[in-house]
Amino acid sequence: MITEIAQIDIKPGSEADFEAAVAKAGAAFGRSKGFHGFELHRSIEKPQRYRLMVKWETLENHTVDFRGSENFTEWRGLVSGFFASPPEVEHTDTVVTIPG
Amino acid sequence: MITEIAQIDIKPGSEADFEAAVAKAGAAFGRSKGFHGFELHRSIEKPQRYRLMVKWETLENHTVDFRGSENFTEWRGLVSGFFASPPEVEHTDTVVTIPG
Repeated sequence: MITEIAQIDIKPGSEADFEAAVAKAGAAFGRSKGFHGFELHRSIEKPQRYRLMVKWETLENHTVDFRGSENFTEWRGLVSGFFASPPEVEHTDTVVTIPG
Repeated sequence: MITEIAQIDIKPGSEADFEAAVAKAGAAFGRSKGFHGFELHRSIEKPQRYRLMVKWETLENHTVDFRGSENFTEWRGLVSGFFASPPEVEHTDTVVTIPG
């Protein structure tokens, strides 16, 4: 399992519409191979900055399968109008977990 | 509940020792007020880049209670020698959750 971290800066004033669009896009992700859920995080210090944290079974499930699918086209169609700049995307492995 | 995201770049070659130090520091976090667990993520694209994702009950549990405590001194004592630059710290609210 890997985590995709997409840092997304949006246009000021479009926060509520952007969050609703991301929620709506959950269906397109849900149909995608290797998808294990996502969380949308909003920055407290920079309220127009979000991070979409997506769990994928493998790196390729995101970079190849999802990006090459109609689900990606649907996702981008829902949210790209809100972007202030292109998202910065990175992938991570979880190497230490400490429970609360 | 909020998430602290600390982006940490470490000195090349110290990855295994850094990860072991973070695991050891779990005890200091575990004693901290409002702590609800953390995950250490390692970047696939930039292998010396980590993100420590810490769940806190409130923002102040991190910025006031933890940073003013001996637990913070212990944490920094364990890991600061590995830092290549000062960590960049941000806090987020989770605004949308889609299960896998």
